[in-house]
Amino acid sequence: MKVSPTIDLITIGDELLLGLTRNGHLTYLGEQLAFRGAPPNRNFVIRDEAKEIRRNFEKAWSESDIVITTGGLGPTSDDRTREVIAEILGLELLYSQEVEDDIRERFKSFGREMGPNNKKQAYYPSGAEIIMNAQGTAPGLWLELDDKLLIMLPGPPRELQPMFENQILPRLGQEGRLADSDRIFSFQTSGIGESALELELHPILKPYSDVNVAYCARYGVVDVRLSSISGETSLDQIQELAEVCKRALGKQFLDYGKKGITAVVQQLLVSRYETVAVAESCTGGLLGGAFTSLPGSSDVFQGSLVTYTNMAKHELLSVPKADLEVYGAVSEPVAKAMAQGALQNFHSTWALSTTGIAGPGGGTPDKPVGMVFIGWAGPRGAFAKKFDLRGNRGIVRERTVNIAFDILRRQLLRSD
Amino acid sequence: MKVSPTIDLITIGDELLLGLTRNGHLTYLGEQLAFRGAPPNRNFVIRDEAKEIRRNFEKAWSESDIVITTGGLGPTSDDRTREVIAEILGLELLYSQEVEDDIRERFKSFGREMGPNNKKQAYYPSGAEIIMNAQGTAPGLWLELDDKLLIMLPGPPRELQPMFENQILPRLGQEGRLADSDRIFSFQTSGIGESALELELHPILKPYSDVNVAYCARYGVVDVRLSSISGETSLDQIQELAEVCKRALGKQFLDYGKKGITAVVQQLLVSRYETVAVAESCTGGLLGGAFTSLPGSSDVFQGSLVTYTNMAKHELLSVPKADLEVYGAVSEPVAKAMAQGALQNFHSTWALSTTGIAGPGGGTPDKPVGMVFIGWAGPRGAFAKKFDLRGNRGIVRERTVNIAFDILRRQLLRSD
Repeated sequence: MKVSPTIDLITIGDELLLGLTRNGHLTYLGEQLAFRGAPPNRNFVIRDEAKEIRRNFEKAWSESDIVITTGGLGPTSDDRTREVIAEILGLELLYSQEVEDDIRERFKSFGREMGPNNKKQAYYPSGAEIIMNAQGTAPGLWLELDDKLLIMLPGPPRELQPMFENQILPRLGQEGRLADSDRIFSFQTSGIGESALELELHPILKPYSDVNVAYCARYGVVDVRLSSISGETSLDQIQELAEVCKRALGKQFLDYGKKGITAVVQQLLVSRYETVAVAESCTGGLLGGAFTSLPGSSDVFQGSLVTYTNMAKHELLSVPKADLEVYGAVSEPVAKAMAQGALQNFHSTWALSTTGIAGPGGGTPDKPVGMVFIGWAGPRGAFAKKFDLRGNRGIVRERTVNIAFDILRRQLLRSD
Repeated sequence: MKVSPTIDLITIGDELLLGLTRNGHLTYLGEQLAFRGAPPNRNFVIRDEAKEIRRNFEKAWSESDIVITTGGLGPTSDDRTREVIAEILGLELLYSQEVEDDIRERFKSFGREMGPNNKKQAYYPSGAEIIMNAQGTAPGLWLELDDKLLIMLPGPPRELQPMFENQILPRLGQEGRLADSDRIFSFQTSGIGESALELELHPILKPYSDVNVAYCARYGVVDVRLSSISGETSLDQIQELAEVCKRALGKQFLDYGKKGITAVVQQLLVSRYETVAVAESCTGGLLGGAFTSLPGSSDVFQGSLVTYTNMAKHELLSVPKADLEVYGAVSEPVAKAMAQGALQNFHSTWALSTTGIAGPGGGTPDKPVGMVFIGWAGPRGAFAKKFDLRGNRGIVRERTVNIAFDILRRQLLRSD
């Protein structure tokens, strides 16, 4: 097994250090490279200043096999990555007519003239290869020098990401610098916490001492990544191991890959020619928002009634006034009646409902913040269940959405 | 004007480099420090390994005035920040009975016993001051050495953030290491793009050559931060300058600070004792979700009808069948009728509606992806307007939500 290269990632941009934008490049490139068995060893986030680029690039270049830079390739005088790095490496800047023509064409296609500043983007360090940018004016650069590799990528994510996936990653694989296919096998679970999951998978994975497991929990859904540290266990074997995990987890196993619970539920409904509607109180529309977040949702999603007042619950969802008065809006009978009301209003196969105390105010000793009832209705009748959720208002609402999806998913699996 | 200190931030955690979690510490600490006039100069994101902590800490310590580390203070053998840094600085690790007692008490309050691993967290480098952690077991550390300052913070955001805001930031201000109050004055705009905004503010801000302006646009709302680079222009003067910007921007000015358009609209409604309801198609519930994202929303938000089918639009919102057939669901008459339907169903003062092609599929030459109609109804009647929005499905939906809020905001301001 070849030792994987040491990769340093240098993200250039004042807006990251000012807390104005999140460092999405690290998340994106980290995941892409991790799946090929070589996550970045280190990330420098630095200001767009010559002095900063110089001292940090020098360190990264001397201590790693591959350096990837992002940003600073634009047309303005603030964009100086290309110039500073060429100077450090003692490389002349050469001019590419092809790049200038390409940029000029791009402007023309928008009905605009190329500005004089953009000429700057047609320069490249001697010895570098130009990576054409299908989405913008800043070309990427690929430079091999002294047994090392420098990859310079443009800053905007919508330019960087297709360039990396279509042009950089395949080439790194072909040249044997990284694995040429995924080294991680991933799956998702739903309705089981991270620690309980760890306990459940431990006996299965324990005998494989070189298999690494990484967990990432997001409000009820856990991403699990399996990989071999030494390469001793092959990806096929890891896949078999995932299959064993799947059988052990039963309905807690969501799917291979990382498509998320919304897509899984949508596909289950599509395959059964069934539909869903929802009635929401504490989630305020987020459950419908999640159902409609993916293309094709109109095939299965009928609609949502967000009833934030008792009057609306009664008038629009036919929740009995007596239930609202006796048990209160946050109760099992009301959650059940809400689900039934959604089913009737939207003529759907299934319905889900939510009612609870999202906080921070509104809690009482009987009904504390985090108490949520989720109802469901369908061919087998109407039901509701109580949950005690921890976290702030946003987290309680997100968890509620994921649990509601999980309830419907289990109903759909049960009736298969 | 005192030169602000050079601050290096070292974030320790493999999960960041694997792309499993976003580097929220940089966003949070970046903003906190920027507002005090000293954003971090650099951020190293590194693996939780002794060798990596050593080589990167050494570089940061030698090149900056203040080093802030996050993570690696937990009880497990993976948590080695404290030990490695003490070794580099040649400091003995001392034991604090007070910290052990505090950790033991914390466990007791959860009805649990302190584990033997947690003893490790009671050690601190000689000369360091312990910063008690009100939210967890890992105390922070404050160490002054060789005219430099080292601040070690725990990794979990819900422990780090209150510790930083309540204990670290005030002390940095009191000791004169940072400004003791905000050095940035910020406001938000709505319904004007970043470049148009820049053009509009340029003549106002141009004469103040030392005033720095940073923009951050988020789907229709732009954050504007004004600060003085040299300190020549005082914060009071900057505040006056913001007031001039406010007058020039008129209704495009949203509010000072960064509370967001949802809070602004909610407060306008509260102050007028008025309510709102919504009818959603392409936003699928997100508009209601946004209205209910803040505490106290039940005082103003009545509910939402998410009608994803023509049948639901007709049956539940009384949209005339003829309008749906002649103009189609994505049209001005339907948006108008939807808003009226919401007003009637929920008995609210105001109503908003959305109907559009969020994409990626479903577009036609007449009604391309991104075409969205937003309707509103209230005391002055019902109206609707067409928008052509760019971006993917998620962005089109987010923009629609923000524009709908902006329409209501302008209606509320108009009738004041």
